[in-house]
Amino acid sequence: MGILKKMNEPDDLKLLLPQQLQQLAGELRELIINTVAKNGGHLAPSLGTVELTIALYKAFNFPSDKLIWDVGHQAYAHKILSGRRDKFGTLRQKNGITGFPNRFESKYDAFGVGHASTSISAALGIAAARDIDNAKYKVIAVIGDGALTGGEAFEALNNVGAMKKDMLIILNDNEMSIAKNVGALSGYLSQIRTAPEYTKVKKDFGKLLSALPKVGQTVYKTAEILKDSVKNAFIAGGLFEEMGLSYIGPVDGNDLDAVISVLQRIKNMSGPVLLHVFTKKGKGYLPAEQAPAKFHGVGSFDVTTGQALKKAAAVPTYTNVFSQTLLQLAGENEKIVAITAAMPDGTGLSNFAKIYPQRFFDVGIAEEHALTMAAGLAAAGKKPFVALYSTFAQRGYDQILHDICLQKLPVVICLDRAGIVGEDGPTHHGVFDYSFLRNIPDIIISAPKDENEFRHLIYTAASIDKPMVIRYPRGQAVGVSLDSGLQNLSIGKAELLQDNGEILIIAAGTMVYPAIEAAGILAMDNISCSIINARFIKPLDEQLILETVKNKKYIVTIEENVLAGGFGSAVLELLADNHIAMNNVIRMGLPDVFIPQGPRNELLADNNLTAEKIAANIKNIADNGVI
Amino acid sequence: MGILKKMNEPDDLKLLLPQQLQQLAGELRELIINTVAKNGGHLAPSLGTVELTIALYKAFNFPSDKLIWDVGHQAYAHKILSGRRDKFGTLRQKNGITGFPNRFESKYDAFGVGHASTSISAALGIAAARDIDNAKYKVIAVIGDGALTGGEAFEALNNVGAMKKDMLIILNDNEMSIAKNVGALSGYLSQIRTAPEYTKVKKDFGKLLSALPKVGQTVYKTAEILKDSVKNAFIAGGLFEEMGLSYIGPVDGNDLDAVISVLQRIKNMSGPVLLHVFTKKGKGYLPAEQAPAKFHGVGSFDVTTGQALKKAAAVPTYTNVFSQTLLQLAGENEKIVAITAAMPDGTGLSNFAKIYPQRFFDVGIAEEHALTMAAGLAAAGKKPFVALYSTFAQRGYDQILHDICLQKLPVVICLDRAGIVGEDGPTHHGVFDYSFLRNIPDIIISAPKDENEFRHLIYTAASIDKPMVIRYPRGQAVGVSLDSGLQNLSIGKAELLQDNGEILIIAAGTMVYPAIEAAGILAMDNISCSIINARFIKPLDEQLILETVKNKKYIVTIEENVLAGGFGSAVLELLADNHIAMNNVIRMGLPDVFIPQGPRNELLADNNLTAEKIAANIKNIADNGVI
Repeated sequence: MGILKKMNEPDDLKLLLPQQLQQLAGELRELIINTVAKNGGHLAPSLGTVELTIALYKAFNFPSDKLIWDVGHQAYAHKILSGRRDKFGTLRQKNGITGFPNRFESKYDAFGVGHASTSISAALGIAAARDIDNAKYKVIAVIGDGALTGGEAFEALNNVGAMKKDMLIILNDNEMSIAKNVGALSGYLSQIRTAPEYTKVKKDFGKLLSALPKVGQTVYKTAEILKDSVKNAFIAGGLFEEMGLSYIGPVDGNDLDAVISVLQRIKNMSGPVLLHVFTKKGKGYLPAEQAPAKFHGVGSFDVTTGQALKKAAAVPTYTNVFSQTLLQLAGENEKIVAITAAMPDGTGLSNFAKIYPQRFFDVGIAEEHALTMAAGLAAAGKKPFVALYSTFAQRGYDQILHDICLQKLPVVICLDRAGIVGEDGPTHHGVFDYSFLRNIPDIIISAPKDENEFRHLIYTAASIDKPMVIRYPRGQAVGVSLDSGLQNLSIGKAELLQDNGEILIIAAGTMVYPAIEAAGILAMDNISCSIINARFIKPLDEQLILETVKNKKYIVTIEENVLAGGFGSAVLELLADNHIAMNNVIRMGLPDVFIPQGPRNELLADNNLTAEKIAANIKNIADNGVI
Repeated sequence: MGILKKMNEPDDLKLLLPQQLQQLAGELRELIINTVAKNGGHLAPSLGTVELTIALYKAFNFPSDKLIWDVGHQAYAHKILSGRRDKFGTLRQKNGITGFPNRFESKYDAFGVGHASTSISAALGIAAARDIDNAKYKVIAVIGDGALTGGEAFEALNNVGAMKKDMLIILNDNEMSIAKNVGALSGYLSQIRTAPEYTKVKKDFGKLLSALPKVGQTVYKTAEILKDSVKNAFIAGGLFEEMGLSYIGPVDGNDLDAVISVLQRIKNMSGPVLLHVFTKKGKGYLPAEQAPAKFHGVGSFDVTTGQALKKAAAVPTYTNVFSQTLLQLAGENEKIVAITAAMPDGTGLSNFAKIYPQRFFDVGIAEEHALTMAAGLAAAGKKPFVALYSTFAQRGYDQILHDICLQKLPVVICLDRAGIVGEDGPTHHGVFDYSFLRNIPDIIISAPKDENEFRHLIYTAASIDKPMVIRYPRGQAVGVSLDSGLQNLSIGKAELLQDNGEILIIAAGTMVYPAIEAAGILAMDNISCSIINARFIKPLDEQLILETVKNKKYIVTIEENVLAGGFGSAVLELLADNHIAMNNVIRMGLPDVFIPQGPRNELLADNNLTAEKIAANIKNIADNGVI
């Protein structure tokens, strides 16, 4: 760490010699690898952009110039170089530095991020503001070829090409989103990369044009007329040129000298410029180079072997259970099709893709399209399962409402990583879905208490002819034994787990077992609790709840979702509409703030959502009342 | 109406001679113009596609073949030709046929729609389902050049180009979204349209290629290597070819013979085909041809003059008030910038655009980009006002959450057409925004009771450094007099309008005046009401509400939003959290269904949200209690 240690200011980098910059790249990689091996994080993307980051700091003056990373999982070198070297050991830890650019963390983070495809929009906004102010700073967006498939990025490009602001868009092309990138654009970029003798072609094109007069007068005229568009077409990047950007590239983004040289050359170009660099995801760490999707985001691992430190748990994850159950159902019901938005591994659909390739669709980072395409599949008689992370489903609210529910199409929306996700922090917590979905007419929203119920809900969803959401958390399931068969659960029917106390707990999804455990703790204090597993957030089991609340002294609702408009709020609506007094209702859930990063269990505890905290709160209420 | 009258089945059209088809086009136009002149509707888009629609019915077999219209406001001829001729007089009327394709209305409407940019996604889903089933039907999507700027359309194109399903995408290029289309893509399409001697160029290109050997061996090799990409580039539509589609066109879409001929020629092409037709928005009705944006969507008008039948009202619309107030503020505060997503007229920003062109941004049909770009502008020190229709803001839920509120950026989101919009029906009612926004931390949500308060809210939003939503309805404001100055309203402070009865009405936004009027009606029955104008849906005025509810016999909340998770639900949360009994709370608002089309006032009455209905309901409660 000889050079990195001596750097006090980002600008110190500008004084380094080429050889020293190479050494710096090595030191950055070492620090990133060792830190992520300990803390977990987005390793492969951040390793791929080390040289690009150094080159950016060499060519530009941050924070006067504005650097906007798309998604932000490739920005570790940027964080280290911008004054966060000494804190980098706290990466993704509670109260530590965050895993994504964050305006509240550093003035070098010009725009906060976590979700994909926003960087060009933000950069254009900043460039437009700059020009109104007649300021002179540079604006640079770095976007991956995966994030470029997101529709918002295209909306922004369409606007960039028309507005012609001075700005640099760096396309960081590693042929991956999280997994292998898909789609026509990806094929197009790949053509550019593999075109032989690129620079030579450019030169030859000049010769070709100058040779044209020999060809004949008529043809020549035509060619003259078309000269500009022809010129764009002959060189790589015609698609971007057609969109009104100047295309530069491709350049090897892991060749430090090459990237520095091209940035120096183009940094003062006017108008919007797209620089196409290709980089290797996982570059410089062999296990990550060999398995870049696996090392996209990882938990702690052994640096020498690349093996995960956490042993494979005996208890499967919810994702595993989803994967296996859907596969089983797909064997029995050929109408079932599956859709992912660039997350075949993360959502557990990889095996489905292998076994039923014709019935599997990876549409790229494109949640909106994924949901409307599912609606199309359903309109044509299929039973689509769309698997999304809860936080990314936020991108598809309108499609769920307008394309799926308004048409009552039987699409199943599987929301993985719902609730607190942990170290990825506030951009990734899936804690809003009950609230943003519950207002949609004709939607069914369910949340299983454990993997056994989860399997039955998947089965139920497959067998009904309505839109249905199943919401489940990140990580290991509960560890219960599985019923041998699968069964239909009645839509909107809750489960009365016990009815032996004056305190009624109505818990949703992940909070059912903590509620049961809390009741166990309270029982030792001779406080008895009744417990309902809601199972369905919409429709609520009105009959059971209304019957069970009678004569209860306190009613406690518990959910892993924000309280505003969430599950507890649905219970309040039910009680109010039935004119039942509610001065004795306590809603437990997440507060009206963005929850920071940290281990899931700690964050749940911080928000009073562990069995112990729930028990302590209820005991306090039982002892002291609520007023 | 000689020919149209005789048509009993869509297939009858196939037997008509060319001249008869021309006559049919004229008859369709006549019926459309006369009906829209009476009922209002989307005139100009539907006039532009008459020939295209006839050609589609000539070339394809519906409903076996699947026709998916994007947005759907251009589908009137389709409706008439597919068995709805006799009902067409009820267009957009209550219980009449709807203004958009609708799966519940006709088997010829393969996919329902209303919002833009979904057709390619839906068509791809249907084509994928077809291929799994080894079925043979054709799938056709018709999308405008405006809707093509929406990101979801690009996400879909990216997937279409990779999946290579047999499908036809017809790009209906009229150089307009609702207003003049914007963006790089629009410029690109315009280049194609205006390229001289298009077919000749194509032929000449062949000569050019064949002439290449003469040029020299080195260059020839290079050219050979690049042949495929060069070929794509020389002909028009290279951008689409790069994306993996076969580009055909451009064709004059109002030339019936030309469109029939090209469809017959290409309908059996394999793989995804993009047919580029240019049409004239408003074609065949001079006033609409001359002012296509004005005649995009219209109220009833005089067919002879094109003049609106409804006289300009003395009372301004909320949109007018917004327009004037923002303009005034922009003169005083140069940080203010304004953004629209293809609706400069609809949102009232046209004058702003004229006076402050550098501070105005029409980003195209691109709500996601609009919101993130606004966040970028705010991050660079500007005060952006993004004006969207409430229903289209559904497209930007994630951007409001992830890009604006998480970063606490001072963007003002102005939600026009919130609440019941009337004849456009369920795809367009803006009745979910309280619910889908209220769960977002750090957001301020306000709704004025009248235009005077509206002006103060705009002023307030301009002066605070936080994200803020202002939500207001379609159409005329209340007609109150305006304060001479503008003033800051305290964030989260409600207004106690009267406190003289045992019944407390807490009303939000548009429901405040009906509440006041209802109280007047009730006073005649000696029932006294207290009234709070909430003004802010978030944060609620907790203090005022908690103080005022004391000793009230009934609490009535009223909102023009769905009840699930809405304003009344926020009041319930407040009361429950303060352990106030709520067996006496009545929430009035919209039920948990998609509200159909009809006149706004009638729909409000149907849902008990007029002063008379509110008064009657409260009287019933006062007389009989709530249990």
